[in-house]
Amino acid sequence: MHAEDIAEEFPTVGVDADALDAVRLLADNRLPAVVVVDESGKPFTVLLAAQVLHGLVPGYVRDDPSLAGVLTESMADQITSKFAAKTVRELLSDEPPELPEVQHDDTLVEVAAAISASRLPLAVVRGCALPVGVITASRLLERALSTS
Amino acid sequence: MHAEDIAEEFPTVGVDADALDAVRLLADNRLPAVVVVDESGKPFTVLLAAQVLHGLVPGYVRDDPSLAGVLTESMADQITSKFAAKTVRELLSDEPPELPEVQHDDTLVEVAAAISASRLPLAVVRGCALPVGVITASRLLERALSTS
Repeated sequence: MHAEDIAEEFPTVGVDADALDAVRLLADNRLPAVVVVDESGKPFTVLLAAQVLHGLVPGYVRDDPSLAGVLTESMADQITSKFAAKTVRELLSDEPPELPEVQHDDTLVEVAAAISASRLPLAVVRGCALPVGVITASRLLERALSTS
Repeated sequence: MHAEDIAEEFPTVGVDADALDAVRLLADNRLPAVVVVDESGKPFTVLLAAQVLHGLVPGYVRDDPSLAGVLTESMADQITSKFAAKTVRELLSDEPPELPEVQHDDTLVEVAAAISASRLPLAVVRGCALPVGVITASRLLERALSTS
């Protein structure tokens, strides 16, 4: 079994798309992350739901969550006021984590190696038939167990 | 809206359970993480699917994924041979990340603050009706957007 046999389509968002579109994509799909593609459509990093929350909460509240009570806006208002007119690029950290890549004919062990060498729980598959084919860590475990 | 209104049940595994049971739970639910509970049933950390892969791949292959070809066992065999007769405790890192906690009557902003102060994309909700109630980052975004 090779990477292309277990790759799945994955939601993507352009780095210059509206930040709110990325937040909706995460929310609607209930995903911990979406793949971010560059101007040419090439996947290069992910935007994590946790990172979005990080951007919503002021630093002094992150340091002391008991101060959250001083924020009078609702979460919905926080999202609207912080992310209106922003792009996905502005939600990414200064050094967004590099997306691990595997080739379509790599073995599952090679995929596991690529994922575990990175800080992200997924790898993008190059050269497979899907527009953006991804293998998550749990997908890999699922397919490995189903063949045992 | 408060934490208990958006908390959801979440798969858990005991710290002394078989490692393979935890791997199956991750695989069957296609989850990036399951919650780990201690001997008294109290949630205290998570086991990440990516961490499981990390445990499967030898250090020298993580350092240089091109060496994955030297591993002659399939992923399924790797899982069986590495995790047989091990417990969940042995899959956890030496200092497993602390699970953020919120109270059932905390606001969504307080939940966002707790999650974004941690390295994990979810918080456990104390005092809600569910056995183990959890709010993930994407669940929080979903509910926040649906009320805007």
